[in-house]
Amino acid sequence: MLANIRIVLVETSHPGNIGAIARAMKNMALTELYLVKPKTFPSADATARASGADDVLASAVVCDTLNEAIADCEVVMGASARDRTIGWPTLLAKQCAQQAVQDAQTNQVALVFGRENSGLTNAELDSCQYLIRIPCNKDFSSLNLAAAVQVFTYELYSEANQKAVEQVSPESEPLATSTQIEGFYQHLQETLTAIDFIQSGQSNSVMRRLRRLYSRSRLSTREVDILRGILRMSQGSKE
Amino acid sequence: MLANIRIVLVETSHPGNIGAIARAMKNMALTELYLVKPKTFPSADATARASGADDVLASAVVCDTLNEAIADCEVVMGASARDRTIGWPTLLAKQCAQQAVQDAQTNQVALVFGRENSGLTNAELDSCQYLIRIPCNKDFSSLNLAAAVQVFTYELYSEANQKAVEQVSPESEPLATSTQIEGFYQHLQETLTAIDFIQSGQSNSVMRRLRRLYSRSRLSTREVDILRGILRMSQGSKE
Repeated sequence: MLANIRIVLVETSHPGNIGAIARAMKNMALTELYLVKPKTFPSADATARASGADDVLASAVVCDTLNEAIADCEVVMGASARDRTIGWPTLLAKQCAQQAVQDAQTNQVALVFGRENSGLTNAELDSCQYLIRIPCNKDFSSLNLAAAVQVFTYELYSEANQKAVEQVSPESEPLATSTQIEGFYQHLQETLTAIDFIQSGQSNSVMRRLRRLYSRSRLSTREVDILRGILRMSQGSKE
Repeated sequence: MLANIRIVLVETSHPGNIGAIARAMKNMALTELYLVKPKTFPSADATARASGADDVLASAVVCDTLNEAIADCEVVMGASARDRTIGWPTLLAKQCAQQAVQDAQTNQVALVFGRENSGLTNAELDSCQYLIRIPCNKDFSSLNLAAAVQVFTYELYSEANQKAVEQVSPESEPLATSTQIEGFYQHLQETLTAIDFIQSGQSNSVMRRLRRLYSRSRLSTREVDILRGILRMSQGSKE
């Protein structure tokens, strides 16, 4: 299961953190590391801090965009230290591990971590179906990036090795990938613009609300097809 | 409770680790740090890595011996990555937190961590009542010292704040009533008929799929308003 769970780091500044994360991953039997625009990679600092997890570093996939790193993932979770005003569904570390390990039986799962200083942008969080968070001291809530990844990977390992995970999946269809989901949102936004429900440029809050709504329901590939079929007909009917 | 739990570091080599541990402790609302013969302390590296947990560093107690650091403790737990031949009672991180938080109601509790390269000596472990260990990859089982402390402090915080932690719920908007939901489905069905996506009379399977999709996301009143607004505009745009 853990082979289907990847760690995605967005614009990491300190190569030492990348190394420490490779080590934390290997300690917890994770291997799939994706780096979106790392400031410095590869680097001697990263290798030193990896302390023998060189294989994780060597197989890391470097990407230009977050979308590239999660393109084939059906389940995307974004780490957030802050409480966002957006009421995104939030999983604490242990719940995150339960959900991720279960989903990883039949899906690719990504845990996405943002910049050391500023985390993930709202636009990046829009690509996530869940916020994930570590319960901690509210007055001092920013964990070191590698420390945060260590907590999540620890919970993932504990969950994966705790019990023979129930192979139960409720008669589910294959989930849509991030690429399919983004294609739908793009199509939806164009349609809403065409019918003057939103205007180009000022569509963010409505689109974010709709993303939140649809991401809660975890769309299947077939459902995305149906929804896009509706969008097509709705535009066609005006011609 | 957490005020009665101290972290004891024995002969730490890298001051950066001491700083990272101060941060990890403050993140998890722990304050009591004891340093047995640290190689370098205080140090700029420690302060930098503490990232604002200067108060934990400033109040750290430096000792010459482990016995001095744990003299007033009733409960002493020693971290060990290896399985020791000593048949010492061993607690995994989560069990350690349960035991420590319970004991801390009426006792002073110490979690003791050894050197980066060699851990605790057998003589030092003799001063402990429990070994504590983090479940991990048996082929790569040595965590970074600060990462290990982060996992234990995370479990301690989670245990001490269990009720709060379990109560986290996505501050949700008021859910729509059945009447509102049915009104939306009715409106949706009319619209899909109007755009020829479904035909009157034979619409059951598509509508059933869409109901299933939307019911999974548990629509709020506000979201129903938005969806119906879209339907209204979509019909209006044809006139």
